[in-house]
Amino acid sequence: MDYREFEEKLGHRFHNKKYLITALTHSSYANEAKGKEESNERLEFLGDSVLGFVVADYLFKNYTQFPEGDLTKNRAALVCEKACCGFAKQIDLGNYLRLSHGEQNSGGRTRSSILADAFEAVIAAIYLDAGMEEARKFILRFVLPMLKAHKPKAFKDYKTALQEIIQQNPEEHLEYVLTGESGPDHDKHFTVEVHLNSNVIGKGGGRSKKEAEQQAAREALELMGY
Amino acid sequence: MDYREFEEKLGHRFHNKKYLITALTHSSYANEAKGKEESNERLEFLGDSVLGFVVADYLFKNYTQFPEGDLTKNRAALVCEKACCGFAKQIDLGNYLRLSHGEQNSGGRTRSSILADAFEAVIAAIYLDAGMEEARKFILRFVLPMLKAHKPKAFKDYKTALQEIIQQNPEEHLEYVLTGESGPDHDKHFTVEVHLNSNVIGKGGGRSKKEAEQQAAREALELMGY
Repeated sequence: MDYREFEEKLGHRFHNKKYLITALTHSSYANEAKGKEESNERLEFLGDSVLGFVVADYLFKNYTQFPEGDLTKNRAALVCEKACCGFAKQIDLGNYLRLSHGEQNSGGRTRSSILADAFEAVIAAIYLDAGMEEARKFILRFVLPMLKAHKPKAFKDYKTALQEIIQQNPEEHLEYVLTGESGPDHDKHFTVEVHLNSNVIGKGGGRSKKEAEQQAAREALELMGY
Repeated sequence: MDYREFEEKLGHRFHNKKYLITALTHSSYANEAKGKEESNERLEFLGDSVLGFVVADYLFKNYTQFPEGDLTKNRAALVCEKACCGFAKQIDLGNYLRLSHGEQNSGGRTRSSILADAFEAVIAAIYLDAGMEEARKFILRFVLPMLKAHKPKAFKDYKTALQEIIQQNPEEHLEYVLTGESGPDHDKHFTVEVHLNSNVIGKGGGRSKKEAEQQAAREALELMGY
């Protein structure tokens, strides 16, 4: 296997090739070797946490206006199997995997779960070989273009979205009306209606007025087909 | 609020006190302050990933015989709400929280979810203030004693456990018998029986013989009341 070629695609030359080889070893191959080869499963465990941390850190520091819920959603989209499989394909990871014959013949080189897991294992391999900063650089090489392409949105901010739609017509008037408030101080529940001129176009509830308004705006957007 | 006292419990003196104060600010307090105070929710998001990474890294490097499944289970036990709440109590975190009056009056200072979230936020505060190595030191101060007390086991190894029980009586003989094998190469399924002398005491199935044997041993242990 020409690991040199793959290292060039990774942009990282391994001091300890064992990390790289293990990262590329699927459990089907390790099983066939009956304990003589280690599979990439432990590396995948570690790589998953390195990826989660690097992406959380990046989002936290660069999307300072995002509330926690939006950070969580955006991170989930960047570290999921689909995303990792896409990253793996960018470096032709499938070509370099060590698979059992059976797995190879049944399309293992293009199977999403195998590619995503191996991508995480490669992250761990780089982290173990060269430290967190190298791993971070490697991860951001894939994550940044995806962030650029998708322009992560503060998912939650339905009020702003609704406002932007409505104000295209200056005669329309949007208003949020508090219709209920219940529960003790520490466990309040608010209900809110959003009115367009004098029509109710959405209702929402939540633990704060702000949350209830967001929910109402969300319902309005849904009703309007957004 | 005497943050100096709390910093002593943390073992970290903050360069930027804002991180510490935000980590201690519950959303109920921030909501009451109507946007003038930031809650600890974003920090909790970041702290959760720092904690997950540090624990994964530690387990990976110190439990080199553990397969991925055991690493995952042990990590889950160390980063769960129950564990984090326990860590928070060790540093009297509840006493230093900024809560709304309502939350305070309804026992917020001892509520498990509030304490666990704030503990994760404190981790992020230390990470942002002083870097990963400080955060790692802080986390391991809580995690290591817990690992020592619980002696994490390779949960999966039922065969070893069964063997140790059986060999207490040298006349007993344990044997694993392959009873079935089906499916194409890449998706095989094996079934195994474990025999004690000539009695079947457990049956198991899995994608490899080893896995099927483990499952059979597990069933035997359960039948024997372990």
